[in-house]
Amino acid sequence: MKAVVLKGPFRIDVEERPHPVILQPTDAIVKVSRAGVCGSDLHAYRGHQKTATGYVMGHEFTGVVEEIGAEVKNIWIGQKVVATFAPVCMKCWFCEHGFTNRCQNGGGFGNPLLPGGQAEYVRAPYADGTLLAVPDDLDEELLIMMCDILPTGYYGASRAISGYLQVYQSATSVSSQSTPLAFKAPSLEEAVFVCIGCGPVGLCAIMTARYKGVKNIYVVDSVDERLEQAARWGGIPLKLGKDDVSAAILAATGGRGADAVIEVVGNRAALRSAFDLLRPCGVLSSIGFHQGDLPFTAFECYTKNLNINLGRAPARAVYDEALEVLIAHKTQLSDFISHRMPMSEAPHAYEIFEKQQARKVVLLPQ
Amino acid sequence: MKAVVLKGPFRIDVEERPHPVILQPTDAIVKVSRAGVCGSDLHAYRGHQKTATGYVMGHEFTGVVEEIGAEVKNIWIGQKVVATFAPVCMKCWFCEHGFTNRCQNGGGFGNPLLPGGQAEYVRAPYADGTLLAVPDDLDEELLIMMCDILPTGYYGASRAISGYLQVYQSATSVSSQSTPLAFKAPSLEEAVFVCIGCGPVGLCAIMTARYKGVKNIYVVDSVDERLEQAARWGGIPLKLGKDDVSAAILAATGGRGADAVIEVVGNRAALRSAFDLLRPCGVLSSIGFHQGDLPFTAFECYTKNLNINLGRAPARAVYDEALEVLIAHKTQLSDFISHRMPMSEAPHAYEIFEKQQARKVVLLPQ
Repeated sequence: MKAVVLKGPFRIDVEERPHPVILQPTDAIVKVSRAGVCGSDLHAYRGHQKTATGYVMGHEFTGVVEEIGAEVKNIWIGQKVVATFAPVCMKCWFCEHGFTNRCQNGGGFGNPLLPGGQAEYVRAPYADGTLLAVPDDLDEELLIMMCDILPTGYYGASRAISGYLQVYQSATSVSSQSTPLAFKAPSLEEAVFVCIGCGPVGLCAIMTARYKGVKNIYVVDSVDERLEQAARWGGIPLKLGKDDVSAAILAATGGRGADAVIEVVGNRAALRSAFDLLRPCGVLSSIGFHQGDLPFTAFECYTKNLNINLGRAPARAVYDEALEVLIAHKTQLSDFISHRMPMSEAPHAYEIFEKQQARKVVLLPQ
Repeated sequence: MKAVVLKGPFRIDVEERPHPVILQPTDAIVKVSRAGVCGSDLHAYRGHQKTATGYVMGHEFTGVVEEIGAEVKNIWIGQKVVATFAPVCMKCWFCEHGFTNRCQNGGGFGNPLLPGGQAEYVRAPYADGTLLAVPDDLDEELLIMMCDILPTGYYGASRAISGYLQVYQSATSVSSQSTPLAFKAPSLEEAVFVCIGCGPVGLCAIMTARYKGVKNIYVVDSVDERLEQAARWGGIPLKLGKDDVSAAILAATGGRGADAVIEVVGNRAALRSAFDLLRPCGVLSSIGFHQGDLPFTAFECYTKNLNINLGRAPARAVYDEALEVLIAHKTQLSDFISHRMPMSEAPHAYEIFEKQQARKVVLLPQ
């Protein structure tokens, strides 16, 4: 079969690989219909992420089940399915408690340990957890958003929201013997959120925040087209290098700083900017993939009373909730995929995606 | 009047100072009955905290109101009061929303900007917020615990608990179109918490966690007497340098790591240990005063899906809730104060407290 293979920094080839086979009774083999190129593929493509080469790329795919192992129960041959970006066993302690982002057996698609979905066929471990049925009434192509981008953006936004609401509750949740103080309740109507990074995940975070009731969400990027898209989805655009982002947030908050910041970029400067824009006791929801140091000290965190979450999304755990957001925004999301190409053009697809000339690229292996 | 003054590292004197006067119409002057020596006084005493010298120490005191400014409404002359460790204006955005730890006007008692309570008299800014009436049915001495130690320990524990409960909710709080996954709910009965540091604040955190339903709380310290006290209050003791703390926590959690860690020490090693003991997607509630760098990288945080809170407690906001814990534990807390001394013996009080030969020292200025 044909597959998209990482050869080195900025080098992608389409190569012949053996057709995958069932290795475990919980596996399924999927004939891939569509495979997305995701922003996180660029970490390896650009060479920022230290990795071996020669493996099949991709962690976003939909397709048809071709074969199943003996223990697969929820998925059947011929079924149209979509995968989450990482296999999930649904049996370990973490999966059982909703932390599917830290499944102890899952790993991820598209790395030296598990060939990815940018191929004609792919082996999906733990198929009962990893693969979800494509609903009959939804365009299969739209489901590419459900592999990673939308659940990840959803998670970034919902962590920011629940953290924003929860901080207050920690001070007032217990009944009291004396007269409790009447603090002003947190209000998603009045809160000022910021999203740093308006790529696909950032846009999904903005969409989710607005859907869940956040009225004021400032969105920061350097790319005009992304900011325009973010504005169409309800964000208030601030352009890096042009607008004074810090002054705008201070002005919008009476000088206190943002109540919550969602950071989607995954570099030091973005995380520092998120920290600086945040008010004391604010919430920093970081879903960017960070590979280096933290750009603030413990003293700064203590002084700001920082609340921060980091790490990848439990795509499987939030799948149903994120799907609700997708269903509510079918029209807006339908024009989001800007490029569809035969898989043979994968090198070109990566090139234009890396140069931000494509919003979202879907490869067609068949 | 007489006052306890910091002269330099390990140098405390009792000196003559001018009687404080009303400077603002929201001030009150308190004749101090009792003043606590707190673990956080040791940061300056030991010289770890860079600070000027020559100021009046102390942020824990009870006393009787001697004089009030024209705008003070809730407090009257002759009233028995207790102060929170930092003045709170109760008017700024942060106070109004329950973030009294970040009052924009408050500062703190016992530093170069505001003379502290280890004195015969003290000026209390924003008296209506800063001072609270001593209930008639409570021993005034016990209220020294309410200035800092108990609200701070309370906050450390309740942040850990609410974070532990909230992480799960972020994955499942929204109704869904499709069938939601049935994840196991978080359970304070089953959870494994850790408290690093069993000084007075740590002990109050342990007491709070147990009171709020945490069944299993492992407690880590190097001082036998503290561990014994922690065990009496429901903690499971682990001695640094003797027990294999990491192995014990892994054994108690089926290898996953602690669900939440409360870190009370305020140094790099303790914070790193907290990080290492935590399971992926766990909650780190840090109330130690950190003055340096963070002892983990962004990559480590991303990989662990870290949730962390840092910073000082909103003592005023949680005062009523913490008082409930105090009232429920009057007997246990009554023998907590190990030393009572005339204020003239303050140099000796600091010496034995610094050497951990005293659990809690109360100075008597009058």
